[in-house]
Amino acid sequence: MHPKEQRLKYRENVENGTTSGICDGYLQANMISLPAKYAFEFLLFCHRNSKPCPVVDVLEAGQVIPRIADADIRTDLPKYRIYKNGVLERETFDLTDVWEDEFVTFLLGCSFTFEKALNEAGISLLHQEMKKVVPMYQTSISCEEAGSFKGDMVVSMRAIKKEELEETIRITSMFPHAHGAPVHIGDPAEIGIHTFEHPDYGEFTPFNEEERIPVFWACGVTPQYVGLNAKPEIMITHAPGHMLITDQKE
Amino acid sequence: MHPKEQRLKYRENVENGTTSGICDGYLQANMISLPAKYAFEFLLFCHRNSKPCPVVDVLEAGQVIPRIADADIRTDLPKYRIYKNGVLERETFDLTDVWEDEFVTFLLGCSFTFEKALNEAGISLLHQEMKKVVPMYQTSISCEEAGSFKGDMVVSMRAIKKEELEETIRITSMFPHAHGAPVHIGDPAEIGIHTFEHPDYGEFTPFNEEERIPVFWACGVTPQYVGLNAKPEIMITHAPGHMLITDQKE
Repeated sequence: MHPKEQRLKYRENVENGTTSGICDGYLQANMISLPAKYAFEFLLFCHRNSKPCPVVDVLEAGQVIPRIADADIRTDLPKYRIYKNGVLERETFDLTDVWEDEFVTFLLGCSFTFEKALNEAGISLLHQEMKKVVPMYQTSISCEEAGSFKGDMVVSMRAIKKEELEETIRITSMFPHAHGAPVHIGDPAEIGIHTFEHPDYGEFTPFNEEERIPVFWACGVTPQYVGLNAKPEIMITHAPGHMLITDQKE
Repeated sequence: MHPKEQRLKYRENVENGTTSGICDGYLQANMISLPAKYAFEFLLFCHRNSKPCPVVDVLEAGQVIPRIADADIRTDLPKYRIYKNGVLERETFDLTDVWEDEFVTFLLGCSFTFEKALNEAGISLLHQEMKKVVPMYQTSISCEEAGSFKGDMVVSMRAIKKEELEETIRITSMFPHAHGAPVHIGDPAEIGIHTFEHPDYGEFTPFNEEERIPVFWACGVTPQYVGLNAKPEIMITHAPGHMLITDQKE
Protein backbone atom coordinates (compact mmCIF):
# COMPACT_ATOMS: atom_id res chain seq x y z
CA MET A 1 0.00 0.00 0.00
CA HIS A 2 1.22 3.53 -0.77
CA PRO A 3 2.02 5.67 2.31
CA LYS A 4 -0.65 8.24 1.39
CA GLU A 5 -3.38 5.59 1.44
CA GLN A 6 -2.07 4.04 4.64
CA ARG A 7 -1.92 7.43 6.37
CA LEU A 8 -5.54 8.03 5.36
CA LYS A 9 -6.50 4.95 7.36
CA TYR A 10 -4.82 6.48 10.39
CA ARG A 11 -6.43 9.86 9.72
CA GLU A 12 -9.89 8.30 9.59
CA ASN A 13 -9.03 6.06 12.56
CA VAL A 14 -9.83 2.94 10.56
CA GLU A 15 -6.48 1.56 11.77
CA ASN A 16 -4.22 2.47 14.70
CA GLY A 17 -1.66 -0.34 15.07
CA THR A 18 2.14 -0.25 15.02
CA THR A 19 3.78 0.86 11.76
CA SER A 20 6.43 -1.87 12.07
CA GLY A 21 6.50 -3.68 8.72
CA ILE A 22 3.88 -1.34 7.17
CA CYS A 23 4.63 0.28 3.76
CA ASP A 24 7.91 -1.57 3.51
CA GLY A 25 10.63 0.45 1.79
CA TYR A 26 9.43 3.89 2.91
CA LEU A 27 11.28 5.88 5.56
CA GLN A 28 9.56 6.05 8.94
CA ALA A 29 10.23 8.85 11.41
CA ASN A 30 9.97 9.63 15.13
CA MET A 31 7.91 12.75 15.86
CA ILE A 32 8.30 15.33 18.66
CA SER A 33 6.29 18.57 18.83
CA LEU A 34 7.11 21.36 21.28
CA PRO A 35 6.07 24.99 21.79
CA ALA A 36 8.17 27.36 19.65
CA LYS A 37 10.09 28.77 22.60
CA TYR A 38 11.87 25.40 22.98
CA ALA A 39 12.65 25.03 19.26
CA PHE A 40 16.17 26.51 19.15
CA GLU A 41 17.49 24.62 22.16
CA PHE A 42 15.92 21.35 21.03
CA LEU A 43 17.33 21.68 17.48
CA LEU A 44 20.71 22.54 18.99
CA PHE A 45 20.48 19.46 21.23
CA CYS A 46 19.80 17.35 18.14
CA HIS A 47 22.70 18.99 16.30
CA ARG A 48 25.06 18.25 19.20
CA ASN A 49 23.79 14.67 19.56
CA SER A 50 23.16 13.60 16.01
CA LYS A 51 23.59 9.87 16.67
CA PRO A 52 20.55 9.54 18.94
CA CYS A 53 18.76 12.52 17.29
CA PRO A 54 19.22 12.47 13.51
CA VAL A 55 16.93 15.27 12.27
CA VAL A 56 15.29 14.32 8.97
CA ASP A 57 12.74 17.17 8.83
CA VAL A 58 11.54 20.17 10.85
CA LEU A 59 8.08 21.78 10.65
CA GLU A 60 8.25 25.40 11.70
CA ALA A 61 5.52 27.03 13.79
CA GLY A 62 2.27 27.10 11.83
CA GLN A 63 3.28 24.22 9.53
CA VAL A 64 1.51 20.86 9.74
CA ILE A 65 2.66 19.31 6.45
CA PRO A 66 6.19 17.85 6.48
CA ARG A 67 8.54 18.26 3.53
CA ILE A 68 9.11 14.50 3.37
CA ALA A 69 5.45 13.37 3.49
CA ASP A 70 2.24 14.74 1.98
CA ALA A 71 0.68 14.25 5.41
CA ASP A 72 -1.02 16.18 8.19
CA ILE A 73 1.14 15.74 11.26
CA ARG A 74 -1.90 16.18 13.54
CA THR A 75 -3.90 13.22 12.24
CA ASP A 76 -1.80 10.94 10.02
CA LEU A 77 0.11 8.94 12.60
CA PRO A 78 -1.67 5.92 14.10
CA LYS A 79 -1.19 6.94 17.73
CA TYR A 80 0.25 9.84 19.75
CA ARG A 81 1.34 10.57 23.31
CA ILE A 82 0.65 13.85 25.07
CA TYR A 83 2.99 14.80 27.91
CA LYS A 84 2.39 17.73 30.24
CA ASN A 85 5.18 19.10 32.46
CA GLY A 86 7.23 15.98 31.75
CA VAL A 87 4.48 13.48 32.65
CA LEU A 88 2.47 11.31 30.25
CA GLU A 89 -1.08 12.61 30.30
CA ARG A 90 -2.71 10.34 27.73
CA GLU A 91 -2.49 8.58 24.39
CA THR A 92 -4.68 9.72 21.53
CA PHE A 93 -5.37 8.95 17.86
CA ASP A 94 -5.87 12.57 16.84
CA LEU A 95 -4.30 15.87 17.87
CA THR A 96 -6.85 18.24 16.37
CA ASP A 97 -8.24 19.31 19.77
CA VAL A 98 -4.84 20.04 21.37
CA TRP A 99 -2.92 21.51 18.42
CA GLU A 100 -1.55 25.05 18.70
CA ASP A 101 -0.17 27.08 15.80
CA GLU A 102 2.99 27.76 17.80
CA PHE A 103 4.08 24.09 17.86
CA VAL A 104 7.33 23.20 16.11
CA THR A 105 7.67 19.57 15.04
CA PHE A 106 10.86 17.55 14.70
CA LEU A 107 11.02 14.34 12.66
CA LEU A 108 13.94 12.08 13.53
CA GLY A 109 15.40 9.06 11.77
CA CYS A 110 14.61 5.62 13.12
CA SER A 111 16.32 2.26 13.42
CA PHE A 112 13.71 0.60 11.18
CA THR A 113 15.85 1.95 8.30
CA PHE A 114 19.05 0.18 9.25
CA GLU A 115 17.24 -2.96 10.41
CA LYS A 116 15.80 -3.30 6.93
CA ALA A 117 19.29 -3.00 5.44
CA LEU A 118 20.56 -5.66 7.89
CA ASN A 119 17.66 -7.92 6.92
CA GLU A 120 18.50 -7.55 3.27
CA ALA A 121 22.10 -8.55 4.00
CA GLY A 122 20.79 -11.72 5.68
CA ILE A 123 21.90 -10.66 9.16
CA SER A 124 19.88 -12.35 11.88
CA LEU A 125 17.99 -10.05 14.29
CA LEU A 126 16.71 -11.99 17.29
CA HIS A 127 13.97 -9.57 18.37
CA GLN A 128 12.42 -9.81 14.92
CA GLU A 129 12.63 -13.62 14.87
CA MET A 130 10.94 -13.66 18.29
CA LYS A 131 8.47 -10.93 17.28
CA LYS A 132 9.48 -8.78 20.25
CA VAL A 133 10.13 -5.07 20.70
CA VAL A 134 13.89 -4.41 20.65
CA PRO A 135 15.29 -3.96 24.21
CA MET A 136 16.27 -0.39 25.14
CA TYR A 137 18.32 0.88 28.09
CA GLN A 138 19.20 4.06 29.92
CA THR A 139 23.00 4.35 29.94
CA SER A 140 25.67 6.44 31.64
CA ILE A 141 26.74 7.95 28.29
CA SER A 142 26.15 11.70 28.72
CA CYS A 143 24.61 13.63 25.87
CA GLU A 144 26.02 17.09 25.18
CA GLU A 145 23.49 19.44 26.71
CA ALA A 146 21.79 22.42 25.06
CA GLY A 147 20.00 24.84 27.36
CA SER A 148 17.36 22.97 29.35
CA PHE A 149 17.79 19.79 27.30
CA LYS A 150 20.18 17.41 29.01
CA GLY A 151 20.44 13.77 30.03
CA ASP A 152 22.03 10.40 29.32
CA MET A 153 21.72 8.48 26.08
CA VAL A 154 19.17 5.71 25.61
CA VAL A 155 20.43 2.81 23.48
CA SER A 156 18.86 -0.15 21.74
CA MET A 157 20.55 -3.56 21.84
CA ARG A 158 20.73 -6.30 19.24
CA ALA A 159 22.69 -9.50 19.94
CA ILE A 160 24.60 -10.07 16.69
CA LYS A 161 26.27 -13.31 15.55
CA LYS A 162 30.02 -12.87 15.98
CA GLU A 163 30.75 -13.70 12.35
CA GLU A 164 28.24 -11.06 11.24
CA LEU A 165 29.57 -8.28 13.50
CA GLU A 166 31.91 -6.62 11.02
CA GLU A 167 29.27 -6.54 8.28
CA THR A 168 26.71 -5.18 10.79
CA ILE A 169 29.00 -2.28 11.70
CA ARG A 170 29.78 -1.58 8.05
CA ILE A 171 26.11 -1.50 7.04
CA THR A 172 24.79 0.62 9.92
CA SER A 173 27.66 3.12 9.46
CA MET A 174 26.10 3.89 6.09
CA PHE A 175 22.97 5.31 7.77
CA PRO A 176 24.01 8.45 9.67
CA HIS A 177 20.38 9.60 9.39
CA ALA A 178 19.25 6.48 11.22
CA HIS A 179 21.62 6.39 14.22
CA GLY A 180 24.67 5.19 12.23
CA ALA A 181 27.39 2.92 13.63
CA PRO A 182 27.05 1.28 17.08
CA VAL A 183 28.01 3.36 20.13
CA HIS A 184 29.17 0.32 22.12
CA ILE A 185 29.97 -3.36 21.59
CA GLY A 186 30.24 -5.96 24.35
CA ASP A 187 29.98 -5.55 28.14
CA PRO A 188 26.76 -3.65 29.01
CA ALA A 189 28.16 -2.62 32.43
CA GLU A 190 30.77 -0.44 30.69
CA ILE A 191 28.01 1.94 29.63
CA GLY A 192 26.12 1.79 32.91
CA ILE A 193 23.65 -1.00 32.12
CA HIS A 194 23.38 -3.19 35.23
CA THR A 195 20.08 -4.97 34.62
CA PHE A 196 20.79 -6.27 31.14
CA GLU A 197 18.02 -8.89 31.22
CA HIS A 198 15.49 -6.30 32.37
CA PRO A 199 15.56 -3.48 29.83
CA ASP A 200 14.06 -0.07 30.60
CA TYR A 201 11.90 -0.28 27.49
CA GLY A 202 11.11 -3.17 25.11
CA GLU A 203 11.78 -6.85 25.78
CA PHE A 204 14.88 -8.96 26.39
CA THR A 205 15.42 -12.15 24.41
CA PRO A 206 17.98 -14.58 25.91
CA PHE A 207 20.84 -15.54 23.56
CA ASN A 208 23.88 -17.79 23.46
CA GLU A 209 26.93 -15.74 24.49
CA GLU A 210 29.27 -18.11 22.68
CA GLU A 211 27.51 -17.28 19.43
CA ARG A 212 26.41 -13.67 19.77
CA ILE A 213 27.72 -10.39 21.16
CA PRO A 214 25.55 -7.49 22.40
CA VAL A 215 25.75 -4.44 20.13
CA PHE A 216 24.31 -1.07 21.22
CA TRP A 217 23.04 1.74 19.02
CA ALA A 218 22.02 5.30 19.94
CA CYS A 219 18.24 5.21 20.22
CA GLY A 220 15.49 7.59 19.14
CA VAL A 221 13.93 7.35 22.61
CA THR A 222 16.78 9.61 23.84
CA PRO A 223 15.24 12.89 22.62
CA GLN A 224 11.87 12.00 24.19
CA TYR A 225 13.56 11.19 27.48
CA VAL A 226 15.65 14.38 27.34
CA GLY A 227 12.64 16.39 26.22
CA LEU A 228 10.70 15.23 29.28
CA ASN A 229 13.63 16.10 31.55
CA ALA A 230 13.12 19.72 30.52
CA LYS A 231 9.49 19.46 31.72
CA PRO A 232 7.91 21.52 28.93
CA GLU A 233 4.28 22.48 29.62
CA ILE A 234 3.33 20.31 26.65
CA MET A 235 5.24 17.85 24.45
CA ILE A 236 3.62 15.58 21.89
CA THR A 237 5.26 12.49 20.40
CA HIS A 238 4.27 9.46 18.34
CA ALA A 239 3.37 6.48 20.56
CA PRO A 240 6.29 3.99 20.62
CA GLY A 241 6.31 1.95 17.40
CA HIS A 242 3.58 4.15 15.88
CA MET A 243 5.72 6.31 13.59
CA LEU A 244 5.11 8.70 10.73
CA ILE A 245 5.33 6.82 7.43
CA THR A 246 6.93 9.26 5.00
CA ASP A 247 6.86 9.39 1.20
CA GLN A 248 10.64 8.96 0.99
CA LYS A 249 12.11 5.69 -0.22
CA GLU A 250 14.69 4.28 2.15
CA MET B 1 52.43 30.38 17.64
CA HIS B 2 49.71 28.72 19.72
CA PRO B 3 46.14 29.97 18.97
CA LYS B 4 45.71 31.23 22.56
CA GLU B 5 48.76 33.51 22.25
CA GLN B 6 47.76 34.70 18.79
CA ARG B 7 44.21 35.48 19.94
CA LEU B 8 45.65 37.53 22.80
CA LYS B 9 47.34 39.75 20.20
CA TYR B 10 43.93 40.33 18.64
CA ARG B 11 42.34 40.91 22.05
CA GLU B 12 44.91 43.55 22.92
CA ASN B 13 44.73 44.97 19.37
CA VAL B 14 48.45 44.47 18.88
CA GLU B 15 47.58 42.79 15.56
CA ASN B 16 44.47 42.92 13.35
CA GLY B 17 45.43 41.40 9.97
CA THR B 18 43.93 38.47 8.05
CA THR B 19 44.17 35.05 9.71
CA SER B 20 45.06 33.41 6.39
CA GLY B 21 48.17 31.31 7.03
CA ILE B 22 48.21 32.14 10.78
CA CYS B 23 48.47 29.28 13.31
CA ASP B 24 48.74 26.73 10.53
CA GLY B 25 47.09 23.42 11.37
CA TYR B 26 44.35 24.85 13.60
CA LEU B 27 40.74 25.02 12.46
CA GLN B 28 39.50 28.52 11.61
CA ALA B 29 35.82 29.41 11.69
CA ASN B 30 33.37 31.97 10.28
CA MET B 31 31.40 33.81 12.98
CA ILE B 32 27.83 35.15 12.89
CA SER B 33 26.06 36.60 15.96
CA LEU B 34 22.34 37.36 15.98
CA PRO B 35 19.72 38.27 18.59
CA ALA B 36 18.23 35.14 20.20
CA LYS B 37 14.87 35.49 18.49
CA TYR B 38 16.54 34.60 15.16
CA ALA B 39 18.49 31.64 16.55
CA PHE B 40 16.07 28.80 15.76
CA GLU B 41 15.42 29.87 12.17
CA PHE B 42 19.10 30.52 11.49
CA LEU B 43 20.17 27.15 12.93
CA LEU B 44 17.42 25.49 10.88
CA PHE B 45 18.67 27.31 7.77
CA CYS B 46 22.16 25.95 8.47
CA HIS B 47 20.76 22.45 9.02
CA ARG B 48 18.89 22.58 5.71
CA ASN B 49 21.91 24.01 3.85
CA SER B 50 24.82 22.26 5.45
CA LYS B 51 27.14 22.59 2.44
CA PRO B 52 27.38 26.40 2.57
CA CYS B 53 26.67 26.51 6.34
CA PRO B 54 28.53 23.72 8.17
CA VAL B 55 27.92 24.45 11.87
CA VAL B 56 31.01 23.63 13.95
CA ASP B 57 29.90 25.31 17.19
CA VAL B 58 27.03 27.34 18.66
CA LEU B 59 27.23 29.72 21.63
CA GLU B 60 23.87 30.05 23.30
CA ALA B 61 22.58 33.38 24.62
CA GLY B 62 24.79 34.54 27.47
CA GLN B 63 27.78 32.48 26.33
CA VAL B 64 30.91 34.19 24.98
CA ILE B 65 33.37 31.28 25.20
CA PRO B 66 33.13 28.73 22.37
CA ARG B 67 33.45 24.99 23.03
CA ILE B 68 36.18 24.71 20.39
CA ALA B 69 38.37 27.64 21.53
CA ASP B 70 39.36 29.03 24.92
CA ALA B 71 38.52 32.46 23.54
CA ASP B 72 36.25 35.42 24.13
CA ILE B 73 34.15 35.79 21.02
CA ARG B 74 33.79 39.55 21.65
CA THR B 75 37.49 40.40 21.48
CA ASP B 76 39.59 37.53 20.15
CA LEU B 77 39.01 37.87 16.40
CA PRO B 78 41.20 40.38 14.56
CA LYS B 79 38.32 42.32 12.96
CA TYR B 80 34.52 42.33 12.96
CA ARG B 81 31.67 43.76 10.89
CA ILE B 82 28.52 45.22 12.41
CA TYR B 83 25.42 45.22 10.23
CA LYS B 84 22.19 47.00 11.15
CA ASN B 85 18.92 46.23 9.35
CA GLY B 86 20.89 44.41 6.64
CA VAL B 87 23.35 47.24 5.97
CA LEU B 88 27.04 47.35 6.94
CA GLU B 89 27.37 50.00 9.63
CA ARG B 90 31.07 49.70 10.43
CA GLU B 91 34.09 47.50 11.01
CA THR B 92 35.56 47.23 14.49
CA PHE B 93 38.35 45.45 16.39
CA ASP B 94 36.32 44.94 19.57
CA LEU B 95 32.67 44.17 20.30
CA THR B 96 32.64 44.99 24.00
CA ASP B 97 30.58 48.17 23.55
CA VAL B 98 27.87 46.59 21.33
CA TRP B 99 27.58 43.13 22.90
CA GLU B 100 24.22 42.04 24.32
CA ASP B 101 23.66 39.00 26.53
CA GLU B 102 20.88 37.85 24.22
CA PHE B 103 23.23 37.29 21.23
CA VAL B 104 23.57 33.75 19.91
CA THR B 105 26.76 33.03 17.97
CA PHE B 106 27.24 30.51 15.19
CA LEU B 107 30.68 29.27 14.14
CA LEU B 108 30.83 27.77 10.68
CA GLY B 109 33.47 25.69 8.91
CA CYS B 110 35.68 27.39 6.36
CA SER B 111 37.43 26.50 3.12
CA PHE B 112 40.87 27.13 4.63
CA THR B 113 40.52 23.57 5.98
CA PHE B 114 40.13 21.84 2.63
CA GLU B 115 42.61 24.17 0.90
CA LYS B 116 45.24 23.04 3.34
CA ALA B 117 44.46 19.40 2.54
CA LEU B 118 44.69 20.18 -1.19
CA ASN B 119 48.04 21.90 -0.62
CA GLU B 120 49.35 18.87 1.20
CA ALA B 121 48.33 16.67 -1.74
CA GLY B 122 50.34 18.96 -4.02
CA ILE B 123 47.26 20.30 -5.85
CA SER B 124 47.90 23.67 -7.42
CA LEU B 125 45.63 26.53 -6.27
CA LEU B 126 46.02 29.58 -8.51
CA HIS B 127 44.69 32.20 -6.10
CA GLN B 128 47.28 31.16 -3.54
CA GLU B 129 50.10 31.21 -6.10
CA MET B 130 48.98 34.70 -7.15
CA LYS B 131 48.37 35.75 -3.51
CA LYS B 132 44.80 36.79 -4.29
CA VAL B 133 41.50 36.36 -2.47
CA VAL B 134 39.59 33.41 -3.95
CA PRO B 135 36.83 34.61 -6.38
CA MET B 136 33.25 34.26 -5.08
CA TYR B 137 29.96 34.51 -6.96
CA GLN B 138 26.26 34.84 -6.36
CA THR B 139 24.56 31.93 -8.16
CA SER B 140 21.06 30.89 -9.14
CA ILE B 141 21.25 27.80 -6.87
CA SER B 142 18.42 28.30 -4.37
CA CYS B 143 19.05 27.53 -0.74
CA GLU B 144 16.27 25.79 1.16
CA GLU B 145 14.65 28.55 3.15
CA ALA B 146 13.91 28.60 6.89
CA GLY B 147 11.54 31.31 8.11
CA SER B 148 12.94 34.71 7.19
CA PHE B 149 16.28 33.25 6.05
CA LYS B 150 16.24 32.69 2.30
CA GLY B 151 18.37 33.38 -0.76
CA ASP B 152 20.67 31.90 -3.39
CA MET B 153 23.95 30.18 -2.68
CA VAL B 154 27.29 31.99 -2.89
CA VAL B 155 30.11 29.82 -4.26
CA SER B 156 33.88 30.08 -4.39
CA MET B 157 35.76 29.05 -7.55
CA ARG B 158 39.13 27.41 -7.98
CA ALA B 159 40.41 26.55 -11.48
CA ILE B 160 41.83 23.05 -11.06
CA LYS B 161 44.25 21.23 -13.38
CA LYS B 162 42.23 18.64 -15.28
CA GLU B 163 44.51 15.78 -14.21
CA GLU B 164 44.04 16.83 -10.55
CA LEU B 165 40.24 17.10 -10.71
CA GLU B 166 39.41 13.62 -9.49
CA GLU B 167 41.78 13.87 -6.53
CA THR B 168 40.43 17.34 -5.70
CA ILE B 169 36.87 16.01 -5.53
CA ARG B 170 37.95 13.03 -3.45
CA ILE B 171 39.83 15.15 -0.94
CA THR B 172 37.22 17.89 -0.47
CA SER B 173 34.47 15.25 -0.08
CA MET B 174 36.25 14.20 3.10
CA PHE B 175 35.51 17.59 4.73
CA PRO B 176 31.73 17.84 5.18
CA HIS B 177 32.40 20.36 7.99
CA ALA B 178 34.25 22.59 5.51
CA HIS B 179 31.82 22.73 2.57
CA GLY B 180 32.61 19.20 1.30
CA ALA B 181 32.52 18.16 -2.37
CA PRO B 182 32.08 20.76 -5.14
CA VAL B 183 28.52 21.85 -5.98
CA HIS B 184 29.33 22.42 -9.66
CA ILE B 185 32.10 21.72 -12.17
CA GLY B 186 32.51 23.45 -15.53
CA ASP B 187 30.31 26.06 -17.24
CA PRO B 188 29.65 28.96 -14.81
CA ALA B 189 26.52 30.03 -16.76
CA GLU B 190 24.79 26.80 -15.74
CA ILE B 191 24.61 28.08 -12.17
CA GLY B 192 23.72 31.63 -13.10
CA ILE B 193 27.21 33.17 -13.20
CA HIS B 194 27.32 35.52 -16.21
CA THR B 195 30.27 37.74 -15.31
CA PHE B 196 32.81 35.04 -14.60
CA GLU B 197 35.82 37.35 -14.89
CA HIS B 198 34.22 39.86 -12.54
CA PRO B 199 33.41 38.00 -9.33
CA ASP B 200 30.99 39.44 -6.74
CA TYR B 201 33.63 39.08 -4.03
CA GLY B 202 37.36 38.32 -4.18
CA GLU B 203 39.56 38.47 -7.29
CA PHE B 204 39.62 36.64 -10.61
CA THR B 205 42.88 35.14 -11.88
CA PRO B 206 42.94 34.29 -15.62
CA PHE B 207 43.80 30.67 -16.43
CA ASN B 208 44.38 28.43 -19.43
CA GLU B 209 41.11 26.64 -20.24
CA GLU B 210 42.94 23.83 -22.00
CA GLU B 211 44.72 23.03 -18.75
CA ARG B 212 42.23 23.87 -16.03
CA ILE B 213 38.52 23.58 -15.35
CA PRO B 214 36.52 25.85 -13.01
CA VAL B 215 35.32 24.06 -9.89
CA PHE B 216 32.75 25.63 -7.56
CA TRP B 217 32.26 25.03 -3.85
CA ALA B 218 29.47 26.19 -1.52
CA CYS B 219 30.86 29.25 0.25
CA GLY B 220 30.68 30.51 3.83
CA VAL B 221 29.64 33.93 2.57
CA THR B 222 26.19 32.42 1.89
CA PRO B 223 24.95 32.61 5.49
CA GLN B 224 26.10 36.24 5.81
CA TYR B 225 24.32 37.12 2.58
CA VAL B 226 21.19 35.26 3.64
CA GLY B 227 21.40 36.70 7.14
CA LEU B 228 21.41 40.22 5.72
CA ASN B 229 18.42 39.39 3.48
CA ALA B 230 16.42 38.88 6.68
CA LYS B 231 17.37 42.45 7.75
CA PRO B 232 17.90 41.73 11.46
CA GLU B 233 18.20 44.86 13.59
CA ILE B 234 21.77 43.78 14.32
CA MET B 235 24.05 41.07 12.95
CA ILE B 236 27.75 40.78 13.73
CA THR B 237 30.25 38.77 11.70
CA HIS B 238 34.01 38.40 11.37
CA ALA B 239 35.45 40.70 8.70
CA PRO B 240 36.20 38.68 5.52
CA GLY B 241 39.43 36.72 5.98
CA HIS B 242 39.60 37.66 9.68
CA MET B 243 38.34 34.43 11.21
CA LEU B 244 38.25 32.87 14.66
CA ILE B 245 41.33 30.70 15.15
CA THR B 246 40.12 27.75 17.24
CA ASP B 247 42.06 25.33 19.46
CA GLN B 248 41.05 22.36 17.30
CA LYS B 249 43.58 20.68 15.09
CA GLU B 250 42.40 20.37 11.50
